[in-house]
Amino acid sequence: MNRNVQVLLASRPEGWVTESNFNIVETDIPEARPGEVLVRNHWLSLDPYMRGRMSTAKSYAASVEIGAVMVGGTVGEIVDSKHPRLKTGQFVVGSLGWQLYATSSGEGLNVVDPKAVPLQAYVGVVGMPGVTAWTGVHEILLPKAGETVLVSAASGAVGGVVGQLAKMQGCRVVGIAGGPVKCEYTVKELGFDACVDYKAGKLLDDLRAACPDGVDCYFENVGGVVMDTVLRVLNPFSRVALCGLISDYNAAEPYGITNIRSILVNRVKVQGFIVSDRMDMFQRALPKLARLVATGKIKYRETVAEGLHAAPKAFIGMLKGENLGKQLVKLI
Amino acid sequence: MNRNVQVLLASRPEGWVTESNFNIVETDIPEARPGEVLVRNHWLSLDPYMRGRMSTAKSYAASVEIGAVMVGGTVGEIVDSKHPRLKTGQFVVGSLGWQLYATSSGEGLNVVDPKAVPLQAYVGVVGMPGVTAWTGVHEILLPKAGETVLVSAASGAVGGVVGQLAKMQGCRVVGIAGGPVKCEYTVKELGFDACVDYKAGKLLDDLRAACPDGVDCYFENVGGVVMDTVLRVLNPFSRVALCGLISDYNAAEPYGITNIRSILVNRVKVQGFIVSDRMDMFQRALPKLARLVATGKIKYRETVAEGLHAAPKAFIGMLKGENLGKQLVKLI
Repeated sequence: MNRNVQVLLASRPEGWVTESNFNIVETDIPEARPGEVLVRNHWLSLDPYMRGRMSTAKSYAASVEIGAVMVGGTVGEIVDSKHPRLKTGQFVVGSLGWQLYATSSGEGLNVVDPKAVPLQAYVGVVGMPGVTAWTGVHEILLPKAGETVLVSAASGAVGGVVGQLAKMQGCRVVGIAGGPVKCEYTVKELGFDACVDYKAGKLLDDLRAACPDGVDCYFENVGGVVMDTVLRVLNPFSRVALCGLISDYNAAEPYGITNIRSILVNRVKVQGFIVSDRMDMFQRALPKLARLVATGKIKYRETVAEGLHAAPKAFIGMLKGENLGKQLVKLI
Repeated sequence: MNRNVQVLLASRPEGWVTESNFNIVETDIPEARPGEVLVRNHWLSLDPYMRGRMSTAKSYAASVEIGAVMVGGTVGEIVDSKHPRLKTGQFVVGSLGWQLYATSSGEGLNVVDPKAVPLQAYVGVVGMPGVTAWTGVHEILLPKAGETVLVSAASGAVGGVVGQLAKMQGCRVVGIAGGPVKCEYTVKELGFDACVDYKAGKLLDDLRAACPDGVDCYFENVGGVVMDTVLRVLNPFSRVALCGLISDYNAAEPYGITNIRSILVNRVKVQGFIVSDRMDMFQRALPKLARLVATGKIKYRETVAEGLHAAPKAFIGMLKGENLGKQLVKLI
């Protein structure tokens, strides 16, 4: 007889997340009440934003309560339905959290076609990370052909799509990633023009070499010293889409950015954004992203952890940059 | 027989500007050649941007060469004309530098009416500083009635106009200034709703008290710890017009901004801007600013240094915040 497994938030991390911040429990599989569906999750997405939800620092979304199931994007199959519209056997993407089974009123669930693209792509390039990339490129950066677009965490779930979308606009696309494996992947597989290894210890020189005409658009996932260095190579009238600051998420004290003056003298626009503000973009971008993936025009890689028990370790590894591409947990 | 007096850049400052960075020389009054005018400057404007021109750090405008006349906005009278359009006796505003007399091809000079507003207002509220304020408010911040608009260096030539323009939009307007005299001036004379004294040593608490609904628009002239603290009180979807960073201009090492995360989680737009990019705004804003000044709807104060020899000391004092309102040098 199957049981449900859930990962709960056990305690709030101070500095780096540890496995002891999580508590893995077995419970009964819940029953769908009238109007609800029961979903068996096939894939759980692990994303940097979850680090923010573990803390009580003011943010755009509420913290996860201690003892509650960790939040997370999921895709799975409806195994029971008492819902007027959703049917048993349909696949749905949503945010059902770090657990094998969940009931839902159907709100926030969207039916997906597992034959169009691989099921797990709906929590990746054809899901929230892909729409994040699309929004940053097409709503904030607005790169013009011939401009240089720089993206940090370039081999990640968001960064990889940013670079490929910018290439389609006719831009020179340069990545920043940690280590030669990730850099080689962005250039050889994703088609970036260049990629700078921030771990090589000469970031400013390497950025100048990789961006001989400076940087017109910067998609920021990292923050800290990477951001501070990139500010020095921005061109006049450049745009920065501020999507993430993963280097600060586990720091006791955030890094102090010293090159703010570049924003002034180069008349830079810096725009912070959160994709969940732009639900309209999901409707506009997802069909296009699905077609680009189905036709092989957008490529991606996945790092897959096997089973929900592996999720905490995989999450910590992702925060440390140990994964390549989209970090997933396979639940079935 | 009159002679010309000029203030030259003698050396580049390291850290704080000193009077030894300037060299005051007497020369012959130049003669207008065919197509030129000779202007006798009546007023020299002293502005924070000049600190940037003294250094070789990359900026939006070229540095002043060692031995060259310091750049600066001026208003004066044409005392000789060999120009087809400009006439002796006309008053012109332009950028003729730290000197009593200058010849000009007429490019960049605009004829002004000394009867409409006081002559020196054309290098202040009805000039570059006023248009800077107008551009920040009406092109970048776009404050809506009921929103809270915060402005640093609130008693300065730019900040004072920012606050009064924002008041006209129906906003709650809060200033940041150094010391009780400046704070009282912004509230009692300029009509700000509140002003926070950053020298009082509890900036965050005072900002929270003065901005109970948070900050929707921030006009930044200062940077450093002031900016870092303001980031903590910004509202979701707020806008920051980054106009100046005077606290860093004389620092050996710029301050490190630690609260960048607020830009992300609050989806803030930060826009650096330089008014000289927006010559269109001069044509649009100056007639409106002149009318607002002439009808007493925009108020301002001046700190006047007497004579060109006093300019270096007055400039250093302005960088230290010793002036109130617009810093001018009276040349005649």
